[in-house]
Amino acid sequence: MTRYHRIFLPNATSCDGFSVKRIKKLKRELNIHGLDAFLAIQNTRYLSSTTTGKAVIVPLDGDPVLICSRLEFEAASRESRIRDIRAYSSWRATLRRGERVSFLESWLLVAEVLKEFGTQAVGYDRAGKNLIRKIRNAHGASYKETPEIMKNLRMIKSPEELNLLRQSANIAVKGMNCANESIEPGRTELEIAAEVEYRMRKAGSEGTPFPTIVGSGKNSLLPHATATQKKLRKGELIVVDLGAIFDGYASDMTRTFSLAPTSKQSKLIQVVRNAQRAAMGKVRDGAKAVDVDTAGRAILTKSKLSKFATHGTGHGVGLEIHEPPNLAPNSRDILRKGMVITVEPGVYSPEVGGARWEDMLIVIKNGHQTLTL
Amino acid sequence: MTRYHRIFLPNATSCDGFSVKRIKKLKRELNIHGLDAFLAIQNTRYLSSTTTGKAVIVPLDGDPVLICSRLEFEAASRESRIRDIRAYSSWRATLRRGERVSFLESWLLVAEVLKEFGTQAVGYDRAGKNLIRKIRNAHGASYKETPEIMKNLRMIKSPEELNLLRQSANIAVKGMNCANESIEPGRTELEIAAEVEYRMRKAGSEGTPFPTIVGSGKNSLLPHATATQKKLRKGELIVVDLGAIFDGYASDMTRTFSLAPTSKQSKLIQVVRNAQRAAMGKVRDGAKAVDVDTAGRAILTKSKLSKFATHGTGHGVGLEIHEPPNLAPNSRDILRKGMVITVEPGVYSPEVGGARWEDMLIVIKNGHQTLTL
Repeated sequence: MTRYHRIFLPNATSCDGFSVKRIKKLKRELNIHGLDAFLAIQNTRYLSSTTTGKAVIVPLDGDPVLICSRLEFEAASRESRIRDIRAYSSWRATLRRGERVSFLESWLLVAEVLKEFGTQAVGYDRAGKNLIRKIRNAHGASYKETPEIMKNLRMIKSPEELNLLRQSANIAVKGMNCANESIEPGRTELEIAAEVEYRMRKAGSEGTPFPTIVGSGKNSLLPHATATQKKLRKGELIVVDLGAIFDGYASDMTRTFSLAPTSKQSKLIQVVRNAQRAAMGKVRDGAKAVDVDTAGRAILTKSKLSKFATHGTGHGVGLEIHEPPNLAPNSRDILRKGMVITVEPGVYSPEVGGARWEDMLIVIKNGHQTLTL
Repeated sequence: MTRYHRIFLPNATSCDGFSVKRIKKLKRELNIHGLDAFLAIQNTRYLSSTTTGKAVIVPLDGDPVLICSRLEFEAASRESRIRDIRAYSSWRATLRRGERVSFLESWLLVAEVLKEFGTQAVGYDRAGKNLIRKIRNAHGASYKETPEIMKNLRMIKSPEELNLLRQSANIAVKGMNCANESIEPGRTELEIAAEVEYRMRKAGSEGTPFPTIVGSGKNSLLPHATATQKKLRKGELIVVDLGAIFDGYASDMTRTFSLAPTSKQSKLIQVVRNAQRAAMGKVRDGAKAVDVDTAGRAILTKSKLSKFATHGTGHGVGLEIHEPPNLAPNSRDILRKGMVITVEPGVYSPEVGGARWEDMLIVIKNGHQTLTL
């Protein structure tokens, strides 16, 4: 997709605005936290725009470095917005003419780069303790797990990210339209999932950020159902929860369909939709995430359904399908302009069936913009 | 799929042979390692057959316990082969009549169960140090990271696992046949991926264990290419690397197609296939993984192509697409009967193109059985 277009831009500037801004913001945080470098293990894609990095090192002073395996060097060279790319090979391989590779384990190359920058106080996002111990043995410095730095940066989406999320959501809507056209008695859940994913793929999706959920009848009671060989039958609720991936960015959307619903089923769907509307009404810059959850839950309580509402009301979406903030009764997150979240109350009543309704929103100053329209 | 059939078996025995065997083997290892319990965070599915578990606790004496969120309790009850299931909710929710839930964070419930068993020496597979610190604070005991216990158990597949891997591989073969039928000049990589995934889905695949690779022309040089809007053209090599998931078990298969290939391209493919044959010839119970790699690489060296062979020769496959053992120049793994591995030499020559050929094999006493036929 856009990734491809990027690949073939031989004259791309060494580090475009998008990435520079992230790196600048990260450096500001390093300063605040008294760190002289950041070691990203989990956030390499966010910082470099390529999935090929094993690690990204951002020194307080100096240009960032991407560490990748020799195997990924070609892809990294095409995709990475970080231009200083160092490749490692954990075995001594025959090299091509002019090829530069460090014959080291990746963690040793990380340590070498940290040493090269003369780092003393390194923050990192999240890594196994064995990995950090090995790096520390090779380059003595203080290492501090500070995942909140990247969390806070990533929660607020840039205009470029919003654009990608919007395109990802557009593909999800196409998938949902396909579900709507495909659902009929006698077809299997799996068939519906196949049709939906095919439609999204053809619309440019890079895959699914989670296994597509088509939960019918008894399976509608499972919030994380997948799609089975079970046939759809009249009198069942069918929860379809799907997402696309566009240039790495996920989307997430749920609708509940019904085949000849009972009046209780129609009522259940209506209450869930009302709960969603109430919750969405609380979304705005500065709102507490918990208040969004509470507003939706209040509607369910009125209909004596809150005991069947087993999950939170939503979550952030970005490069990952579940990111901060968290919209749930125990959340302390505050919604901020530029966050992208889902609002998705769900009720799972053993007697009536399961229903969930989910949209993806951008938080704006005085409310929200819905992406899944 | 089979998962669905399992779901609706109300009279399923409390813990069938498959799971009992794994638990028994694990307990034997606990004894050897001087541990009185195992805490699985990463291997919950392997031990319980459901993805719903946050943790599985296996005491040396007593029955295993599955910890899941309240949200997942219904699915866990249907799917888990571990019958002692404890649900937590991190907020105080209204409960259904008869519903039992601990209003605790998951780690606190883990600690309570460890305390209940009176554990003193707990092994765990892999977990963030913060998680273990919190558990230790709530239940004082020695905690030891021993991921090799599960690694060693999981490397050898049971007959039931081999059956699932075989079915998963059969679906991958259908996908590859579809690629073969779909590839023609003018179609995009993305279209081919869409067709292939659609075919596999309809054949019962639960999704793809990795983004389907359709790398044509310049993109064939990227071992981990995805599928882009690039159109296929005559004179290009097209690497298709795909996999299915069947009851959780992954498959993995690669073929290199060509549209009106040059003689150099045909030769490249032939050499890679010869390398694969040589490598596969070394596979047997007791063989060193490194010898399989070396045998393939020797063929490439003869044709002066080893400098373009940037990756190892293969890997284990199971619930994860990349599992131990590792078949590479620096591997110390020994192949054993019942392992399932890929053999997939690849060569990426900037002038000619990329070619890779991959099959999935069961290691048997005197050789191998190919699953991707």
